[in-house]
Amino acid sequence: MTFAPDLLTPVPDGAHPFPHDHLLGIEGLKPWEIGFLLDEAERWSDPGNSRRRSGALAGLTQINAFFENSTRTLVSFEIAGKRLGADVVSMAVAASSVKKGETLLDTALTLNAMHPDVIVIRHEAAGAVALIASKVDCPVLNAGDGAHEHPTQALLDALTIRRRKGRLAGLKIAICGDVLHSRVARSNFHLLATMGAEVRAVAPPTLMPVGVERLGVHPYTDMAAGLADVDVVMMLRLQRERMAGAYLPSEREYFRFYGLTEERLSGAADDVLVMHPGPMNRGVEIATAVADDIQRSAITEQVEMGVAVRMACLEVLTRPARGIEWAGNAWSAQAPAGDRA
Amino acid sequence: MTFAPDLLTPVPDGAHPFPHDHLLGIEGLKPWEIGFLLDEAERWSDPGNSRRRSGALAGLTQINAFFENSTRTLVSFEIAGKRLGADVVSMAVAASSVKKGETLLDTALTLNAMHPDVIVIRHEAAGAVALIASKVDCPVLNAGDGAHEHPTQALLDALTIRRRKGRLAGLKIAICGDVLHSRVARSNFHLLATMGAEVRAVAPPTLMPVGVERLGVHPYTDMAAGLADVDVVMMLRLQRERMAGAYLPSEREYFRFYGLTEERLSGAADDVLVMHPGPMNRGVEIATAVADDIQRSAITEQVEMGVAVRMACLEVLTRPARGIEWAGNAWSAQAPAGDRA
Amino acid sequence: MTFAPDLLTPVPDGAHPFPHDHLLGIEGLKPWEIGFLLDEAERWSDPGNSRRRSGALAGLTQINAFFENSTRTLVSFEIAGKRLGADVVSMAVAASSVKKGETLLDTALTLNAMHPDVIVIRHEAAGAVALIASKVDCPVLNAGDGAHEHPTQALLDALTIRRRKGRLAGLKIAICGDVLHSRVARSNFHLLATMGAEVRAVAPPTLMPVGVERLGVHPYTDMAAGLADVDVVMMLRLQRERMAGAYLPSEREYFRFYGLTEERLSGAADDVLVMHPGPMNRGVEIATAVADDIQRSAITEQVEMGVAVRMACLEVLTRPARGIEWAGNAWSAQAPAGDRA
Repeated sequence: MTFAPDLLTPVPDGAHPFPHDHLLGIEGLKPWEIGFLLDEAERWSDPGNSRRRSGALAGLTQINAFFENSTRTLVSFEIAGKRLGADVVSMAVAASSVKKGETLLDTALTLNAMHPDVIVIRHEAAGAVALIASKVDCPVLNAGDGAHEHPTQALLDALTIRRRKGRLAGLKIAICGDVLHSRVARSNFHLLATMGAEVRAVAPPTLMPVGVERLGVHPYTDMAAGLADVDVVMMLRLQRERMAGAYLPSEREYFRFYGLTEERLSGAADDVLVMHPGPMNRGVEIATAVADDIQRSAITEQVEMGVAVRMACLEVLTRPARGIEWAGNAWSAQAPAGDRA
Repeated sequence: MTFAPDLLTPVPDGAHPFPHDHLLGIEGLKPWEIGFLLDEAERWSDPGNSRRRSGALAGLTQINAFFENSTRTLVSFEIAGKRLGADVVSMAVAASSVKKGETLLDTALTLNAMHPDVIVIRHEAAGAVALIASKVDCPVLNAGDGAHEHPTQALLDALTIRRRKGRLAGLKIAICGDVLHSRVARSNFHLLATMGAEVRAVAPPTLMPVGVERLGVHPYTDMAAGLADVDVVMMLRLQRERMAGAYLPSEREYFRFYGLTEERLSGAADDVLVMHPGPMNRGVEIATAVADDIQRSAITEQVEMGVAVRMACLEVLTRPARGIEWAGNAWSAQAPAGDRA
Repeated sequence: MTFAPDLLTPVPDGAHPFPHDHLLGIEGLKPWEIGFLLDEAERWSDPGNSRRRSGALAGLTQINAFFENSTRTLVSFEIAGKRLGADVVSMAVAASSVKKGETLLDTALTLNAMHPDVIVIRHEAAGAVALIASKVDCPVLNAGDGAHEHPTQALLDALTIRRRKGRLAGLKIAICGDVLHSRVARSNFHLLATMGAEVRAVAPPTLMPVGVERLGVHPYTDMAAGLADVDVVMMLRLQRERMAGAYLPSEREYFRFYGLTEERLSGAADDVLVMHPGPMNRGVEIATAVADDIQRSAITEQVEMGVAVRMACLEVLTRPARGIEWAGNAWSAQAPAGDRA
């Protein structure tokens, strides 16, 4: 158990640790709200907890509505829900009524009419998840919407960093690659800036968002400069379809200038942490030697923390429906990690 | 709880409330058998019941074998089964052995050999579900077979109407659109005529089945005439592939003559109920203003009743295997809505 | 219950009944290890056991990672896991990250990081399952890897034969068809030879593996000779893609020389057992009259035994993680068939 109680982020007097109905993004969350979710995830990150089934969500229905393919995120949410005892129903995009011309709002109303207790949604359009959330009676969890946000990814990244480095504040963190199209980068920018880290974006000029400085992020187009002295480097997956000329000349050219190699890492802090949301394109955005470096790579720990973070989000968001309320300074019922079967 | 005890349909002396091994269609069911299923569904339609898990089917295996894509119906059956405590296994068409050239009967025998306790089947061929049912040892539920029947859809439609109107007998009900290819229409014709409603079919001449009068249905090719004074209008989904010339000139043309608009509804009863099995093609068979009319549209309630009806059908059909027998005037065991976990 | 206690295969003094972390293949298993799995499967083959849920795997996570489509095997493993009470999560190939260019090892590490308790894998590449097994912390079950092995198929075949014939040793068994590409044939060769059967391979010269004699198998290119006096004939599925000229002239030609007909069976033992792993190509490798011969065909029993064998393998492989250890002459805890819910 690597959870250190002194990492708990205190909730200010009079504040609610998580007063939101949904988790649609990281933008706008208070530092203690992020800290609260990380602390809750910490409970489930202990293998003794994550591998034992909890009855917390027994009798509740979780619908995973994935309008965009993603095996790893879907499996992570399925495992998280089942470990909490929920009845988990997943619907895949290919067979979806949306393909039959149904509007997104009608899909939302249809799902809602089946009385789910929580809905997890991935959609290729930015904002689609918030639109659905506005029409349903239960909590909605954004599992990635277009180039907008992917909040559980940012939370699992933060949890991984916090467990390895003991903190987020003051760390130098570089996020490298196709920043322009990345919801992972956007959610991380919001989270890390909110928690007091020094955040850098490293990208080719064609893949650097305009105005990234307004998020408190320092832009770099040169890898050597961007990685200098960083404590953490987060590589982004390069979508192969970006290669088709408009943004990038070729995979080989990309790797030459922006691939993460041992040599390029030499300018970072000695104990630099290497992260990647997966799935990796080895030899494109990251060299195999770096990906497999047991000391520095936290890539599989990210996946592990993913299940813990999703268990925490599912459990926290369904508290009101389960009659667990914030009573000003404590929750009205025992935290669920204790009532596992 | 909108369930009114006086709606219970009494079973005649000496009759069994549901003496069938399978639910393959509505055709041939007695009025009290339909009424019995609706009454049972009513139990599960109360949110307090439908959202709590029942242990009724605990330890039983439900296989959903969908040889034709349908996300909404599949999700509805999955949720229904899981809320009853069953182990639910769904097999999708795309990956099916049928694609490898296996005959339908071999597929049936294969499924049967795995000892499911109930099988839910959707298939693109009329009669395929009955064929499978004839070869297996457990109850089979037809979730739609070609242009033949879709009994749970007709039951959920009837339940929705009964809850809103208090009865089925004597109501004027128009079913409009592509009646020719619609299993939803066929099952509804059988159910509504059996229950004593006055049923109308409204369709372009090319989409009106020959001999529909023999089902006790009045055919109309003009929407204004067909909707005059009706209590309920059920729109059918227009399959876009019908547009390709053979049946219809164009979507716009179709909407102009057969789309459901506020204007066209003006000839119906003041408290007319608007229904649609979904997914809707807005602007093709139904105008957005009508679909979203909170007073008159029962479209999301239909989806809600879908889960309740499917829970009832799954629970009733598995009674014999669970040792619950009809003892002439009562069931041999407590009805299951009481034993939920 | 056809299980006869005297068929139990005694474990030699000092030996462990199943000392393996994974079930990757049949090759190399000792006779008593195979016998032990068959005896365990026998427990679950009784309908009273197989149809009732066991709590043996409650709280454990089973991931089914199928990189190659197979509805029937996937459904069989899903049912097996759910009947044992496991949380079963299945990931299908089509949506898999592997398609996005992720390496197999990265996929393995990703799955492992989610802390499954057992992983079932099907993959089109021989050796892929062993590679994954070498990288994960939990038991791995091979559900078919390329033309290499399909151990649960061989076990269910053996269980079916043993139940019908009372033994495996000394039986004459012919395996017929596309032996060259068949993992079913390979696993059966290993199992049947280990258990003392006389095994024959019957195939066209182009589909006969070189050196099959080294496995203790007698090759035949003539069906009449190969089937003479056999107690069991196992037909293999002919992949239709083999028809495209390189291996075979045509389906009709194949059936004429290698299809299993009543006439061709006449040279076999009077009580010959006909088997097929499914899905069958009727009229290609097997005549309909033979497939449907109730006396001789054991094809649906094979499917039935498939669930029992998979329950046994899942339960046995997870014993160490559940604290059930072999204490030299007995297991440290009650066998699980007794603790069902």
